[in-house]
Amino acid sequence: MALPPKDHPRYKSLLAREKLVEASDVVAKQGLIAHGRGEAFDYLLGEQTCLPALSAIKAAASALIESKNPVISVNGNVVALASREIARLSEISGAKVEVNLFHRTPERIAGLTKMMKKVGVNALGEDADDKIPGLSSERAKCCSDGIGSADVVLVPLEDGDRCEALVNMGKKVITIDLNPLSRTAQTAHITIVDELTRCLPLLSDFIKEKKGFDSFDNKQCLSDVLNYMAERISS
Amino acid sequence: MALPPKDHPRYKSLLAREKLVEASDVVAKQGLIAHGRGEAFDYLLGEQTCLPALSAIKAAASALIESKNPVISVNGNVVALASREIARLSEISGAKVEVNLFHRTPERIAGLTKMMKKVGVNALGEDADDKIPGLSSERAKCCSDGIGSADVVLVPLEDGDRCEALVNMGKKVITIDLNPLSRTAQTAHITIVDELTRCLPLLSDFIKEKKGFDSFDNKQCLSDVLNYMAERISS
Repeated sequence: MALPPKDHPRYKSLLAREKLVEASDVVAKQGLIAHGRGEAFDYLLGEQTCLPALSAIKAAASALIESKNPVISVNGNVVALASREIARLSEISGAKVEVNLFHRTPERIAGLTKMMKKVGVNALGEDADDKIPGLSSERAKCCSDGIGSADVVLVPLEDGDRCEALVNMGKKVITIDLNPLSRTAQTAHITIVDELTRCLPLLSDFIKEKKGFDSFDNKQCLSDVLNYMAERISS
Repeated sequence: MALPPKDHPRYKSLLAREKLVEASDVVAKQGLIAHGRGEAFDYLLGEQTCLPALSAIKAAASALIESKNPVISVNGNVVALASREIARLSEISGAKVEVNLFHRTPERIAGLTKMMKKVGVNALGEDADDKIPGLSSERAKCCSDGIGSADVVLVPLEDGDRCEALVNMGKKVITIDLNPLSRTAQTAHITIVDELTRCLPLLSDFIKEKKGFDSFDNKQCLSDVLNYMAERISS
């Protein structure tokens, strides 16, 4: 991996990009484009966790603390960027991890499962025996032990259709999405508009310290984020 | 290539994405990420040419009409997305085309030259015998017949360092960049904040009709674009 210079003002952003390019056998090419979209919105956020995102992270902590059967659904981008952060969150929250892909191939599922194994997580995903209703064949596959029976699902960087399908199954859906206007952001119950490796450690810390936040309005939160971005652009 | 449904509200955007994935042997992986960043900003523009961009396109038309030796510098993303639009602009403006890459390899240069050949353009780039001062080795290479001796250079989707190096050579630099905050956008003399396949035909039309626009302030134009985006976000 070509490491950017540590004193570069955008070191973290460049490092994330190199991590994705490095893992490009298991990251979909469309995933690289999606990452770029996220980068642009993060740029508008000033590459920091804004206050509305912080309230969403606290609401997510509450939901995970109260959950009976939480599952973290991960895809290529999530594993390439944040496998360690996911491993810690899984340990602290007791949530299972399932590899679940939009561009699903057996090779990608196996490669990503192996990458999670390296950070100590036995991820579900290879033996998909269940389906998410309302999605086309390959995209519907999931595990009955995992997403199939979860009450709360954390799906970072998720596609809009799939997010909506999970909501329609009656699950409480938490997403992490840098685009506050995306269908995923608008459809989930709790949307954390923040960069993955920045918000996951905060989420883990809040769960560990049992710092939740019960009163939360996702529409209001998204509107606050948009206003924050608009103010930053016009200044 | 997996064609998106023609009635999809974001057909053009999805088609551009598939074109890049299709051409991924000659498009740098970092180029896919960069495209995603552009997508996000285009989303904020409402995927249409805004009025400030239109004035920049007219200023670019003037500069190209008045130029003695104009050159269009193209990279992997530009060729994958808009080889036909570049060919038409080259024909109408009399500008040469040079393949000039940030992530330069002989294979990519040859592949992109071949793609330009398919649309009738004999692009320079393979026999690089000149250098852009101030850039590191591979990134400095250019052709003395092309960029080396150009008075006006159109460099769509260019890196900030390279844009600055061209300005420092005393060339008039026109760029096309969807991020009005990027260093390229801020450094070029004329920045068209618009999507490539949308603005290139307009630029060609203006040159054909000799519709230029002499009075142009790039800083003001960028500020107008930012205000336009901020208004769209907060509404």
